[in-house]
Amino acid sequence: MAVLKIERKVLEKNDEIADEIRKELKSRKTFTLNLVSSPGSGKTTLLEQTISRLKPTHSISVIEGDVQTDIDAQRIDKLGVPVSQIVTNGSCHLEADMVRDAFEQLRHVSSQFLFIENVGNLVCTADFDLGEDLKVAVLSVTEGEEKPLKYPAMFRVAGVLIITKTDLVPYLGVSLETFRKNALTINPDLVVFEVSSKTGEGVDAWVSWLKQQVR
Amino acid sequence: MAVLKIERKVLEKNDEIADEIRKELKSRKTFTLNLVSSPGSGKTTLLEQTISRLKPTHSISVIEGDVQTDIDAQRIDKLGVPVSQIVTNGSCHLEADMVRDAFEQLRHVSSQFLFIENVGNLVCTADFDLGEDLKVAVLSVTEGEEKPLKYPAMFRVAGVLIITKTDLVPYLGVSLETFRKNALTINPDLVVFEVSSKTGEGVDAWVSWLKQQVR
Repeated sequence: MAVLKIERKVLEKNDEIADEIRKELKSRKTFTLNLVSSPGSGKTTLLEQTISRLKPTHSISVIEGDVQTDIDAQRIDKLGVPVSQIVTNGSCHLEADMVRDAFEQLRHVSSQFLFIENVGNLVCTADFDLGEDLKVAVLSVTEGEEKPLKYPAMFRVAGVLIITKTDLVPYLGVSLETFRKNALTINPDLVVFEVSSKTGEGVDAWVSWLKQQVR
Repeated sequence: MAVLKIERKVLEKNDEIADEIRKELKSRKTFTLNLVSSPGSGKTTLLEQTISRLKPTHSISVIEGDVQTDIDAQRIDKLGVPVSQIVTNGSCHLEADMVRDAFEQLRHVSSQFLFIENVGNLVCTADFDLGEDLKVAVLSVTEGEEKPLKYPAMFRVAGVLIITKTDLVPYLGVSLETFRKNALTINPDLVVFEVSSKTGEGVDAWVSWLKQQVR
């Protein structure tokens, strides 16, 4: 009971900080996306593909969240966009105060897009508002069609679902339609994209949609 | 600070219950495995393949942990082994008291193997002892070679690593050697198996190893 109360307090405090972050980002006209998924769904690769397409016309910055290592931040850094790394040291999700600290390092840059790549975790990341405009759930076709049903919270709070690794569909015996149907059963308002970061298929549609959000 | 203390208390209480479970399972000569992984790594499919090979010679029971739905328990039930479902209702990992309750339902059966399939989560499940003899980490090749480095806690507490979906290696540009090397960097004592539940490759070696544990 005490744990529950403290948990609620942690969430309340988190939401306060998230609101502050959101206010500041809004005043800077930065559109902020919180990318959430299981480990290995292809968030970083999708981000690389997205950034390389957006960069010629738009300003971008990135916050990378990881339990350990800065492998992902190094990958993003190679693309020549400002990136700040959060190492959570065991915590399974980002919280708003971590994002506030990371954002301090990026305060000098003004970006149209801020991508926050969360820790790979399909459960706990759903609860924590980071001040983003939008949660983007990323689900790879290799994870299985039933995942939206089994992990509904994430698909409920997300505004966009990106189904990744579609190039592997022929080898898996899965159906993109079933993925889509299961996700929309949980949240009928989801905007769904199907992409292969490997072949590039579908990435342009996602990037076009992103550009519309800041027009 | 208060939160940290309560977290520690939760873990202590958990470990006490886990020790009770372990004692009882030991007296019953049940070898218990706690299967942990990201969502979609193929734990349930591997379990199906394992059970169908073990069942002719060994007695088996299963506890299924899920945030929502009993999809996995239904799959296991079809194989004709006793299965108990835990729905965590949002909690991202199993705890020992949930397993104790589930075990109550299986108390009348005597099994040489008890498989506990944890919630899909590569972070939080590492912290909670369920009374098992062994944690088995499952990692699919589609998740990427660097995952043991990025989520080290899980690979540190596991005794066995099963690399799954090896049939997809030709389409991914990944190397099984690198997976293995990265995992052994984190934990040199890991027993590593490489399997494809689809083609069946490698499953026999894993099942032979299991049989040796109860000989």
